Amino acid sequence: MSEKATPTPDAGRRSDRSRRAIYEAALALVSETGYAKLTIEAIAARAGVGKQTIYRWWPSKGDVVLEAFLDLAQRSAVSPEDDPGAAAFPDSGDLAADLKLVLQATVDELNEPAYADPARALSAEGILNPQLGARFLEHVLAPGLRLYGTRLTAARERGEIRPETDVAIATDLLVAPLTYRWLMGTGPLDHAYADALVDHVLTGLRGA
Amino acid sequence: MSEKATPTPDAGRRSDRSRRAIYEAALALVSETGYAKLTIEAIAARAGVGKQTIYRWWPSKGDVVLEAFLDLAQRSAVSPEDDPGAAAFPDSGDLAADLKLVLQATVDELNEPAYADPARALSAEGILNPQLGARFLEHVLAPGLRLYGTRLTAARERGEIRPETDVAIATDLLVAPLTYRWLMGTGPLDHAYADALVDHVLTGLRGA
Repeated sequence: MSEKATPTPDAGRRSDRSRRAIYEAALALVSETGYAKLTIEAIAARAGVGKQTIYRWWPSKGDVVLEAFLDLAQRSAVSPEDDPGAAAFPDSGDLAADLKLVLQATVDELNEPAYADPARALSAEGILNPQLGARFLEHVLAPGLRLYGTRLTAARERGEIRPETDVAIATDLLVAPLTYRWLMGTGPLDHAYADALVDHVLTGLRGA
Repeated sequence: MSEKATPTPDAGRRSDRSRRAIYEAALALVSETGYAKLTIEAIAARAGVGKQTIYRWWPSKGDVVLEAFLDLAQRSAVSPEDDPGAAAFPDSGDLAADLKLVLQATVDELNEPAYADPARALSAEGILNPQLGARFLEHVLAPGLRLYGTRLTAARERGEIRPETDVAIATDLLVAPLTYRWLMGTGPLDHAYADALVDHVLTGLRGA
């Protein structure tokens, strides 16, 4: 994802240990002190490495947190990017049930601090920093959006949804309201909201 | 909105001039150097005031930018808070037409750097800083969301939309996708998108 110095095989094991310690330190500090006060120096001290070790691998604290978050997501199979089978979109043939399952799981993630704290930090940093925002989009958001697209395209082909449906807009209607409530604090974010959202998106405001 | 020292009448005119110079400096610097690199010192230098003048009135750069943005919004009647008549939601009796008009105007705002640059900065800052996020929600987002709520409630009472419609969810379906594309860069943000979004929200994916 980013350009890293490739360590020699002998140095590789030490590097792996340092890298994991840096990831853990970065994620812990994002939750404990907040992203705004996070520094490379504090990550280095917590991880027990020199700060030059961090600067050698990552240009900024945002890049450290992004890689630490991707590693976390991969290990907890939140991200489909490296293990598409594990996180594929459910397809039971019942579109409403499948969407509610996925949106409820997303609500749970967004309410889980170990996931939500770095995800909020990266969302905010990406809004102000276009380079990091592009990497956040490519590696975190886009893989998930593609899974919605695949499931909704299949639903359209089977006649579960209107043939005129724009799959990108349908995806936005399902994903954006959760993200908006989560980032802007405009209302509660729970399973009941996820279910009602799916019902409103499928039926529409005018109704059948 | 925030607690300010109330100047004496004689000092008031000088204060008003300083305040306006600070607002203009803050907004110009957000666009020119970016919010991340913005400092109280730079705002003071640009505005021709001492930095203690700024610290006396605002606790942080985020608070300066928020007040400058609210002042901008009030002057350009973007915000309904201080002039509800000017920015009231259109009600022609044609819900789809009214929503498209408003969403197209929102798209134009979000594509206008003088509005979008401070709004992005405040969105990002509010994600990381709960106190500022709460003020951004109260003074920027909530007044606009209430206008949607009023228009959609009227539409529900007249039978333009289903009686079971949850007005808060309907509002999210119209507002959140624009915000999501704008902040996350997931797709183009233009009038065609606004129109297609309204059509999808009103008809639903399953269709009539």
